[in-house]
Amino acid sequence: MIIDWKKIAKEMYEKIKDEILITWKKLRLQAILVWNNSSSLRYISQKRKWAEYVWIDFKLEHLDESITEEALLGKIEEYNKDSNTTWILVQLPLPSHIDTKKVINLINPKKDVDWFHSENQWKILLWDDTWLFPCTPAWVMEIFNYLWLDLTWKLVTVIGRSNIVWKPLVAMLINSWATTICCNSKTKKIEEFTKISDIVICAAWSPGLLTLDMINSKTVVIDVWFTVVNDKIYWDVKFDEINNNWNMITPVPGWVWALTVANLMSNILKADRIQNEK
Amino acid sequence: MIIDWKKIAKEMYEKIKDEILITWKKLRLQAILVWNNSSSLRYISQKRKWAEYVWIDFKLEHLDESITEEALLGKIEEYNKDSNTTWILVQLPLPSHIDTKKVINLINPKKDVDWFHSENQWKILLWDDTWLFPCTPAWVMEIFNYLWLDLTWKLVTVIGRSNIVWKPLVAMLINSWATTICCNSKTKKIEEFTKISDIVICAAWSPGLLTLDMINSKTVVIDVWFTVVNDKIYWDVKFDEINNNWNMITPVPGWVWALTVANLMSNILKADRIQNEK
Repeated sequence: MIIDWKKIAKEMYEKIKDEILITWKKLRLQAILVWNNSSSLRYISQKRKWAEYVWIDFKLEHLDESITEEALLGKIEEYNKDSNTTWILVQLPLPSHIDTKKVINLINPKKDVDWFHSENQWKILLWDDTWLFPCTPAWVMEIFNYLWLDLTWKLVTVIGRSNIVWKPLVAMLINSWATTICCNSKTKKIEEFTKISDIVICAAWSPGLLTLDMINSKTVVIDVWFTVVNDKIYWDVKFDEINNNWNMITPVPGWVWALTVANLMSNILKADRIQNEK
Repeated sequence: MIIDWKKIAKEMYEKIKDEILITWKKLRLQAILVWNNSSSLRYISQKRKWAEYVWIDFKLEHLDESITEEALLGKIEEYNKDSNTTWILVQLPLPSHIDTKKVINLINPKKDVDWFHSENQWKILLWDDTWLFPCTPAWVMEIFNYLWLDLTWKLVTVIGRSNIVWKPLVAMLINSWATTICCNSKTKKIEEFTKISDIVICAAWSPGLLTLDMINSKTVVIDVWFTVVNDKIYWDVKFDEINNNWNMITPVPGWVWALTVANLMSNILKADRIQNEK
């Protein structure tokens, strides 16, 4: 059974739009694009599309690639001060002559919808759910929310290790009282854990890693990301064989991105609330 | 078999002392004490004792409890600027009229040997081992180091949830390639996990939680902290019954503190290196 991500994303967008319409404010997302690679342009256009869909005023400042670090830092400071700029989003990657961490950490953390500022990242460990969340792990949690899956008492196996997706996800699972098994490529007998798990989350970038015989008939399977080899996309999960069974499973292409952007919009709403608290 | 923490601590102190003597510098640890409760005084005296043992110049500024937040922040700024102050340590807790987070986050992160600054805390997730570590989880890792236990391929069960000890510890385990099972008070059949584990770490504040029948004959047992009920100390682990067996186990009172302070000194050395990099 495929988890209907389109429905989840649609519900999220409608909810966000409603909330934004109720605020009766002009909320502005200021995006800054420095590097013109095609992925960045595609990401920005997706963000614009959905921001505008939920009635956010999306502004893009397209800077020249030769801009100095100082000038870019100056821009950030300007937007930090500008009360019309509700949120700031710097599209990564930046050209190599610019120190990315320095740029990100200059953004006012309350305007950092991308959740890249160190201060925001740390807060995830405290599970302060009024605060901003990293977008990709947040959508995984959102799925459980929509499936009415209470994680308390549940056994969740996570396969893979990465700083941006995986570690915050583990922190979020733990904070939700899930018993969490963290496996990696050096784990012996991974199937012994996946077989008894209520949920298996794959973020290993290892094509075809999870097969049907490794799970039980009720395991919910979440495949976080794919690997591209010779322009072909490979998933960690053997989708076809698992999908033919009764297990709930996330579908292939499209959905990851949709929910990640939806969670970006959800952060936007939270950032607005946080800013108005003081 | 009891893990000989005294030997580990002694080796650590000697190593640190040697390294400090080699630098031929006068390295100063500036401690700030605001609240005069008896635990804080005891902690400070322990830190002084071991700092002086490893040839660190330990200075204590004992402030009045009525000091304003502003005045305390002023003090921190002073020590941040002072090139003779290598490290700053604010003994917690602070009186309730002072915002602890604000004080801690004003300390130059490179002088923050206690690892309480948000920026330092976040770095643990990146497992940058040239950087500072939180002291309590660090000694747990230090034990594995001294026991020649390579965590790759190993199965480690951690019981309990806390922000300061537990979550950084899980991050450190994961970073060391351990397969890590994170259990909490709502985990079903905890013994199924502990029974197959190479290492069990208890930080649950739940007296007598781990019994001999829950582990296998080779499991290494680490008990991180104790609970005090009516002035009596209780441990998560049933020490006597496990110690009569062949399992390696950390002993009761004394050792936690000794290794935590030793790791503080180890952070001190790292902080010196980090400061000299720029």
